[in-house]
This record gives sequence, C-alpha cells and structure tokens, in this order.
Amino acid sequence: MNKITPEELLQLADDKKFLVIKERLSEENPIDIAGLFGEIPPERVAPFFRLLPKELAADTFVEMDSDMQEKLITGFSDYELHALVDELYVDDTVDIIEEMPANVVKRILASADPSMRSDINEILKYPGNSAGSIMTTEYVTLKPTMTASEAFDRIRQVGSDSETIYTCYVTSKDKKLVGVVTVKELLLASKEKTVAELMTENVIFAYTDEDREETVNRIRDYGLMALPVVDKEQRIVGIVTIDDALDVLTEESEEDFSKMAGVVPTETPYIKTSVLDLWKARIPWLLLLMISATFTGAIISNFENKLASCAVLIGFIPMLMDTGGNSGSQASVSVIRAISLGGISIKDIFRVLFKELRVGLLCCAVLAVCNFGKMFLVDKLLMGRTEEIDIQVMLTVCLTLAVTVVIAKLVGASLPLLAKAIKLDPAVMASPLITTLVDAISLLTYFGLASVFILG
Amino acid sequence: MNKITPEELLQLADDKKFLVIKERLSEENPIDIAGLFGEIPPERVAPFFRLLPKELAADTFVEMDSDMQEKLITGFSDYELHALVDELYVDDTVDIIEEMPANVVKRILASADPSMRSDINEILKYPGNSAGSIMTTEYVTLKPTMTASEAFDRIRQVGSDSETIYTCYVTSKDKKLVGVVTVKELLLASKEKTVAELMTENVIFAYTDEDREETVNRIRDYGLMALPVVDKEQRIVGIVTIDDALDVLTEESEEDFSKMAGVVPTETPYIKTSVLDLWKARIPWLLLLMISATFTGAIISNFENKLASCAVLIGFIPMLMDTGGNSGSQASVSVIRAISLGGISIKDIFRVLFKELRVGLLCCAVLAVCNFGKMFLVDKLLMGRTEEIDIQVMLTVCLTLAVTVVIAKLVGASLPLLAKAIKLDPAVMASPLITTLVDAISLLTYFGLASVFILG
Repeated sequence: MNKITPEELLQLADDKKFLVIKERLSEENPIDIAGLFGEIPPERVAPFFRLLPKELAADTFVEMDSDMQEKLITGFSDYELHALVDELYVDDTVDIIEEMPANVVKRILASADPSMRSDINEILKYPGNSAGSIMTTEYVTLKPTMTASEAFDRIRQVGSDSETIYTCYVTSKDKKLVGVVTVKELLLASKEKTVAELMTENVIFAYTDEDREETVNRIRDYGLMALPVVDKEQRIVGIVTIDDALDVLTEESEEDFSKMAGVVPTETPYIKTSVLDLWKARIPWLLLLMISATFTGAIISNFENKLASCAVLIGFIPMLMDTGGNSGSQASVSVIRAISLGGISIKDIFRVLFKELRVGLLCCAVLAVCNFGKMFLVDKLLMGRTEEIDIQVMLTVCLTLAVTVVIAKLVGASLPLLAKAIKLDPAVMASPLITTLVDAISLLTYFGLASVFILG
Repeated sequence: MNKITPEELLQLADDKKFLVIKERLSEENPIDIAGLFGEIPPERVAPFFRLLPKELAADTFVEMDSDMQEKLITGFSDYELHALVDELYVDDTVDIIEEMPANVVKRILASADPSMRSDINEILKYPGNSAGSIMTTEYVTLKPTMTASEAFDRIRQVGSDSETIYTCYVTSKDKKLVGVVTVKELLLASKEKTVAELMTENVIFAYTDEDREETVNRIRDYGLMALPVVDKEQRIVGIVTIDDALDVLTEESEEDFSKMAGVVPTETPYIKTSVLDLWKARIPWLLLLMISATFTGAIISNFENKLASCAVLIGFIPMLMDTGGNSGSQASVSVIRAISLGGISIKDIFRVLFKELRVGLLCCAVLAVCNFGKMFLVDKLLMGRTEEIDIQVMLTVCLTLAVTVVIAKLVGASLPLLAKAIKLDPAVMASPLITTLVDAISLLTYFGLASVFILG
C-alpha cells in the first residue's frame, strides 16, 4: 500500500473516516508519521495522535520536534500524559525534558512513576557532554549463576521495558559489573550452561563522567552494540546503545563542521532553522573576525607609502594571504579531526610539529618554484610587465610564500592541540581564527623581505 | 588482570612461555590485540598470531592494518589461509581484498569455499559508493509460516555464521522480502505464534545501487539495527548492519572535512599517514588555488596606479576579502552538510537562496554599521588619520562589505547545490574554491565603488 499523504489524511478526517485513518497510520513507521504530522497544521495534529496505538504513539512522539511535543503535552489530560510517559524510554524522556519549559517538565515528572522519575533525575544530574548524560537506565542484568534457560526467562520478564535485550550485563551481588553475554551466545549454547561460563569477563565500559565523544568513539572502535556505563565503584548504572552513539557522533561532527566554518552550532536542521537563528549563529564570528582584520589593516597602513612607491607588490597580497590561509586550515582540520577521533593529544605535539614541518617544507618548495615560474612566464613575459617584475620582486614574493606556508602549517597544527590541552574546544581554533593570524604573519614577512630586497 | 604490554609479550616469547602468551591473549579483545601487534616488530607478529584461537584470530586479523595483513597472508600456508578465511565474514573479506595486491587477492579467493567466493564476487561487482558495496550476505531468513520456536531452531542452525541474528528477514518462496521480525519479538511472543503474525510488513530497505551515504542516513534516521538491501525484483541480496553504517558515516564525514579544507581524502589516520602522503593530499589544491589567485592579482594590477594614488584603500583589502570568504564558507558549509544529511537537494535552491538572501542582508547591515563605527572611532579618531579616511572612503569600504557579504552568501549556498545537481561532489565546492571566487567579486566591487566615489 502506498504511504499516506498529508492531503489524504486531512481529507479522511474531514470525511470522518477515523477507523480508516487508524488502520492506515498503524501500518506506518513512527518516523514517517512524525514527518506526516509535521506537514499538517499543528492544531490538527492532536486528534490524529490520539488515534495511534499506545506504543506507536510513544515512538512517534519521540520523533517529533519539540514545539509540536510541547503543544501536544499542553493539550493532554494528566491521564493521557501518564499513558504516554509510561511507554517512553528513560533516555528519550530526558531528551524531551531538556527542550521543555519548566512547567511542562514538572507535569512530565509528575506523570512518571517513582522509579522512572528517580532514573530521570539521575541522568539529568550528569553534565551534558558526559557519558552519564547519554546513557539509558533500561537494560537487562543477569546473575553469573543463572543457566542459559533461566537467563531467557529473565529476559522475557524484563525485556519489553529494555532498550536492548541483545547484550545482557552480568552483575555480582554488590551490583558490580563482572561480565557481558549476548543473546546470540545464550541462544547458540546448550540450555544448562551457566551465564558465568558463557560471559566475556573482559568488559569494555565507560565511566559516568567520561567525555561523551570518547564514549561513542569506543563503541565505534570496538564495534559494540552497547557500552555499559559504571560509577567509580564499578557498579553498572546505565548503558549507551549504538543507535544513540550514532546520533551523538553525527551531532558532534556537525558541531565541528559548524565551528570550523565560524558558525555557532545549532541543533535544528538547516532548512528548518529560521533566518533570525541562522543570523544569530553566524554574526558573532563574522564580527569578531572583521574586527580582528583591523590588525592586518594596520600592518598594511604602516607600509602604505612604501607600497604606493612599489605598487606591483600589492597585486600579490591576495595570493599570499589565501595560500597561507589554505595551508593553515589544511593542517588545522587534519589535527582537529585526529583529536576528535581519539588519535592524538597534546603529548604528540612535537611529533605533529615535526611532521607538519616536513610537509610544509615539501609544499613550500613546490609552491615557491611553481610561483616563480608562473611569475616569470605569465606576469613578466605574457603580460609584458618586464620592467616592474624584476628578480627582486620575484624573490620577495616566492620567499614570502615559502615562509608563510611553513609557518601556517605549524600554527594550524599546534593551535588545536594547545586549545585541547587547556580544555578549550579545538574546532574553534580552526580556519577563521588561524586565517587572521596567518594573514598577519604573511604580511609582516612580505613587507620585511620587501624592505630588504627592494626598498632597502 | 592488567592488559599485556608489547614489552611483556616479547619478553614472554623470549622466555618461550607460549602457553602463558596463549592464555593471556585469549582474554584480550581483538581490537586491543591488533593494537598490540601494531607495536611490536612486524616480523615477530606471525608466531603470536598463530597462538590465537581460530575465531579470535579472525576477529583480530580484520582489525589489523593492510600492510600487516598482507605480510601475514604471504607467510601463511594454504591450509592456514583457508582456516582464516573460513572464519571471516564476507563483508570483512571484501574490505581486506580491496586493499591487497592482485596475487594476494587470488590466494584469498582460492581459499574461500565456492559459495563464499560467489558472494565476494557479488559484492565486489557493485560500485564503491553503492549500498551493494557495503552490505554483507550473511543474515538469517525465515519463512512466514514458521512458528516462533521453529524460527529459533533455524536461528540456532545458521546463526553462528550470520553477522547479526537479531533482525531476521522473512522471505516468500521467490526470495522476495515480505517482512522483518526481531529476536526480541520472537522471544517475547508465545512459541506457537507464526512469523507472519509477528513480523512487520512495512519494511524499510535500500536498493543495491542506491548511494551508500543515503543508505546509512536511512539507518540512522529510522534508528535501525540493520537495513535489508534488495535488487530490482525486491529480492533480498544482503543487509547493512548499524556498526558498518557507523564506520561508513565516519568515513563520509571525514572525507567531507578533508574536502572542505582542500585536502584530498586519505583513508589512513593522520598520525599514521606518511609525510609524503600528506604532501600528496595537500599540494594539488594549494597549487590550484595559488594559480587561481592570479586572477585576483590581475584585478589588483589593473587598478595598481589608482591604488597608489589613494593608498589608504589598500589597508582594507584583507578585511574585505576575509569577511567575504568567511561569509561564503558559512553558507556553503551549512548547505553542504544539509545535502549530506539528506535535508535538501537542487529543488530547494530557490528556498535556500531566499533564506540566504535574508540572512545575508541581516549580516551585512550589522557588519557595515559596525565597520563604519570602527573606521570612524578607531581608524579616523584614535589613529588620527582624519585626512585620509574621509566619508567617501568610509562609504566605499562599508558598501563593498555589504555587497560582498550578500553575494558571498548566495554564491556559497548555490555552488554546492549546483554541484550536486550535475553529480559533482558538493564538498569540493567548499571554502577554498568559493574564497577565490568571492575574493574576485569583492575586489571588483571595491574598485568599482572607489572609482565612483573617490577617483571618479
């Protein structure tokens, strides 16, 4: 059957064919239903939402944007809200709560049963970028002494409320994590084997206060379906599942993309972000960088009269600045990504600098030689500027280029590492800021060399 | 027990304590063992590798880098190679094969049993960026008429060779995909229920020739553990699991990071990439952009004499170029990411342009006003350049700034969409290329306005 369109849905409602709607919607995927609801007038969503079966309603609710969620909750009776919250997973509820105004949060917490409420408060207590904040508290624990078939009894009993049943966590009497066992291992083993015999004791885990990016990197690097989160006493307090890790990873890398482009990260997708919000995200860096360009401007102003007397030098300023900026951001982006993926840290700084020095020397040699050739063939011969572009000018430009490229590589590679070392965000150090710095360096070099070779 | 260190491992080998090594290694995680092997001299790895139990050996092999893999395979007897390949998953084998020289590929294929060999060839046949190329052919299929307990019998029978058993695919007699059912659903249901009763018929899937990025986006957006891949006749031919999706997603976004910084993407992590490879990845764009800056240089050269007669204008060139470049890359990165995440396509171009026009106008108003204020307060009053910085100069600079920012936003947003429309890579259109274009536009505007206001 074809997917139902927003127009069809509204038409069916106008015709009062609610049973048909109920049937059609029940066959749809929650993500698609949330998308569908996003395309009809917001005030008409509630009646359709009420037609959804309980579980589908909860799954759909989680996928809606927060404005719509708030609108629905405001319209719900306490009974309806309780029925909804009852079906939600703890970590999804936390995500919803974080976007809601205080009065709605209060109502949601009041609707949750006591154990869920305490779980929610537990997760809310961890800082936003920690492993604790992205975990869920619904998972299956087993005892080492259980047999495989007893384990299945337990899974059947608690499984429907768990975010994943496929990885089960084996705990000792004092709740300490002693092993993991998968449903696959339990299924393929004979029924009398004990959990202790089947489990893996060498468990990969995260601490509640660990960085969330490191936590999800671990899930990816070890190819895990879920990662247990433990407290200081090695007691399991939650798990992070791979699908949540995927979301966090996407969020983190989108944040880095934004920061590298000098944009304050927003959580809404581009096409749904309002013009005003886009403006707010972009103007701070534009302003800051514009003001900081005063610095480069001042360098040029100081040299203005000399430039006027040797005007041919002006034409090479953009090339020098751009090539320096590009060299720097190549290095900085490489280093920023390596930091994010967990490949390097401040202790590697000398290794990184030595590497970049060599790459920079190789690059600058090629660029300087090519530029020398280009200036000779194109600028001097082809454009017939034999008089102005003499050997001194060519040397000044090419030497500046060489120096700028090497320095740009070193600055670009070291700033993110230094930022990380003093607990700043490495990504913020990327292209825009480095460009301003490299601009200044390349201009100072240019004018310094020009003073020596040409105007000296 | 603490993790074994490379030094300990070598010491134990020197002491000929092979049983201890075997025992210690068996407790380690394959990823950690691969890491350990990476830190000891390559020629000493093989004897340790032979001590690993069969399955752990295969899991470890998959995690090694391809140089090490090649070295090991070269040293293997045909019997050893067969034993290894037998334990590998089809998709991992394909990944390995893609990195090996032809003679090694031949040996691997010869070691695979006929059905695996045909599966490998099947996957190798799909283009590198398609869903078919990232799928695996090892999954569990069920018949709709099976009961839950019969389903478990089948899972037990074929499960150990499957990449995931948790999502099972229900096929009709002609191999067409008719539904999916999870082990969770089977476990929580009573044993007599049939698969047909338990399965979800509304299956989310991908076609073999679909783009791999779209495929993994679907896994993330729908929160799936695995996505079935079907051929044109809706017959299931493979699945993509979420852990492979996570790897592809990371690879794709790292590629975009590289391209946006004007770096040719490489597959090895930064710290492991040789200086020569880094140079090769970076020099093409640096050269291209340096040469293309000839264009901006030519614009300035044409205006050289006039600039010399009004030297104060030179000092604002870097600010205008940088602000234009930053505005453009803000827009382009936003649009590139939205394309990658599946949010927009060429049909949205007018919506995007209208949005960027408004954002650009807001940004340029603020920037122009602030810059006017800054020029008046800092450049004119504070630096005492009352004579040179008159109202004409201030107007020229601020108007150029305004025009540049708006044009940069429009160019930055439209180029990636146009690239996508003609099947080029949107990310390649990012900052470096756009910067060159925006530089030229801002300089032409600057000199045009200067001619009118100042030198007219």
